[in-house]
Amino acid sequence: MIDYPIKIGDQSLEQLKAHLASEDFSQVMVIADENTAEHCYPLLQPFLPMHYLCKVPAGETHKNLGSCIYIWQQMTNAAFDRKGLILNLGGGVIGDMGGFVAGTYKRGIRFIQIPTTLLSQVDASVGGKLGIDFQGFKNHIGLFREPEGVYIYPGFLKTLSQKELHSGFAEVFKHHLIADAAAWQDLKLLSSLDGVDMAALIDHSVKIKAKIVEEDPFEHGARKALNFGHTIGHAVESYFLEKETPLLHGEAIAIGMIAESFLSQKAGLLPAKDTGEIVAFIKRFYDFWVIGEEHFEAICGLALNDKKNQAGKILCTFLEGVGQFRINQAISSADIQAGLRFFNQVI
Amino acid sequence: MIDYPIKIGDQSLEQLKAHLASEDFSQVMVIADENTAEHCYPLLQPFLPMHYLCKVPAGETHKNLGSCIYIWQQMTNAAFDRKGLILNLGGGVIGDMGGFVAGTYKRGIRFIQIPTTLLSQVDASVGGKLGIDFQGFKNHIGLFREPEGVYIYPGFLKTLSQKELHSGFAEVFKHHLIADAAAWQDLKLLSSLDGVDMAALIDHSVKIKAKIVEEDPFEHGARKALNFGHTIGHAVESYFLEKETPLLHGEAIAIGMIAESFLSQKAGLLPAKDTGEIVAFIKRFYDFWVIGEEHFEAICGLALNDKKNQAGKILCTFLEGVGQFRINQAISSADIQAGLRFFNQVI
Repeated sequence: MIDYPIKIGDQSLEQLKAHLASEDFSQVMVIADENTAEHCYPLLQPFLPMHYLCKVPAGETHKNLGSCIYIWQQMTNAAFDRKGLILNLGGGVIGDMGGFVAGTYKRGIRFIQIPTTLLSQVDASVGGKLGIDFQGFKNHIGLFREPEGVYIYPGFLKTLSQKELHSGFAEVFKHHLIADAAAWQDLKLLSSLDGVDMAALIDHSVKIKAKIVEEDPFEHGARKALNFGHTIGHAVESYFLEKETPLLHGEAIAIGMIAESFLSQKAGLLPAKDTGEIVAFIKRFYDFWVIGEEHFEAICGLALNDKKNQAGKILCTFLEGVGQFRINQAISSADIQAGLRFFNQVI
Repeated sequence: MIDYPIKIGDQSLEQLKAHLASEDFSQVMVIADENTAEHCYPLLQPFLPMHYLCKVPAGETHKNLGSCIYIWQQMTNAAFDRKGLILNLGGGVIGDMGGFVAGTYKRGIRFIQIPTTLLSQVDASVGGKLGIDFQGFKNHIGLFREPEGVYIYPGFLKTLSQKELHSGFAEVFKHHLIADAAAWQDLKLLSSLDGVDMAALIDHSVKIKAKIVEEDPFEHGARKALNFGHTIGHAVESYFLEKETPLLHGEAIAIGMIAESFLSQKAGLLPAKDTGEIVAFIKRFYDFWVIGEEHFEAICGLALNDKKNQAGKILCTFLEGVGQFRINQAISSADIQAGLRFFNQVI
């Protein structure tokens, strides 16, 4: 049961203000990165009571223990107690890391998510999954803990580049692919996000995700549907994180969805026509490049260390037609390589 | 509700073996410190399936993020997945830190506590409080999470020095002081632990603690009774942790209990006769030294940063006669100094 408020729309910052006034918080600290501190914090500030601002460097490479230590220090210096509140103002990195920092400070204080990217608005803010990267493994250290509330202000999307907006869009159409075949019939015709009602799109995605998370909060079953595209996508993302050409999360997941759609088709679960439509749709929104075969082995090695694995098996979620899924499908390194080879061919 | 097994006695390692055989764990790793790896691990090993052993340096000064990083690395190298199990073999440091490491690895895997010191057998293994020290603050980073089971083998106590045994004894008689006036009447006559039935003493203490924790798992109310002696004791312990003359945890808590008994008496809650008996009893078991007044201010500063505080107030648990308590008593720096001055006078 999701028993915290999720507010989406132009009124959400007003609603946040009312929330903050209705409870007894001893101190409030906003955690932001350099970008959200500059572009989003000025929009938020008028709605806040007295507070601290803790600024960390932007980017996934800073989603690590070093940044956590810095934030814990700021909280300690401010003599934050157990009735303190953390407001995470940023994308998935800030939400995941700020939530982890709050969830472990003095064994856990309250936090509120104020996601500023499309990706975090539709994905990272709901579900209580928190964490940081560790030695190249994504979200390797973390915990499950619910926020006090999620406030989604679509106005923040205007601060994003098109590349970032399209990255977040990957999680939006992932939700269509796993859970809403009817909506996919409309969506698949789209060739641009210009003029699209983003609040409605976010609302649709958050509802799908919230429903799945409610059914399975600790990812024992149905929640694994949300991992579609992520087994291969995460490995690709981790691999290129260390390179000079990092991918955005959604771009990597889009690659993963192409590869895993192919594997779903190979397993006889997804018609070739659907795979073709998925590939054609994805190509309209991303500038991909070929992943050289010399990288394949290292990518497979990362996939083998995925949290979702059990007993050494790489587990994956397949599409069973658009709008349905099948979890816990074991795949081999050879399958991953075949998926990546398919990606290279079709892009 | 405590819904995991707590087994105490000579059969506990056999019972652990049965537990391990009854569930599906993909990998098992024992976390031990140099001392328990040498003295306790050989006693445990015959009861375990195939497993890894991860050894960390002994002592509270190593209860930090550096040690966590080392353990997370070992687990990562062993390709530990979400069905892995951690066995924490050691005192409170290993239990708190190993539990924190397990509770945050891939957002939380299962762990079992196998406490080897009297202190951890009666205290640290029940209640789900996990954590590590951070920049001089005890248990500053951590979380609440229950183990899969607690297996208490009194035979491990033979590996302890008398000083360590007496340190653990502080939490035993703390339980008498806050919750069992009748048992205190017998216990207060004791002048040595020679020949005492330790399994019975542990069982009594674990039952008191488990009852209190069940009533209030997240320390909103009654559980704060367990903090008797800890507001001042923790600050004293933190302070001397950095010095050349570190105190054992129980020794510091015993100092705290003397100081906080005095403050309870000063508040009109504890008869002077009881304070006198508590002081006389404690002095039989510890070699104390005077705490120079030049240290008082720094100790107060540490108390001010205690997790248990709210809105900048230092909160303390008082005795209301032996066997009862009163939580959330605000004390000032001057009170702490008066308590420490009393300690210096009576020892």
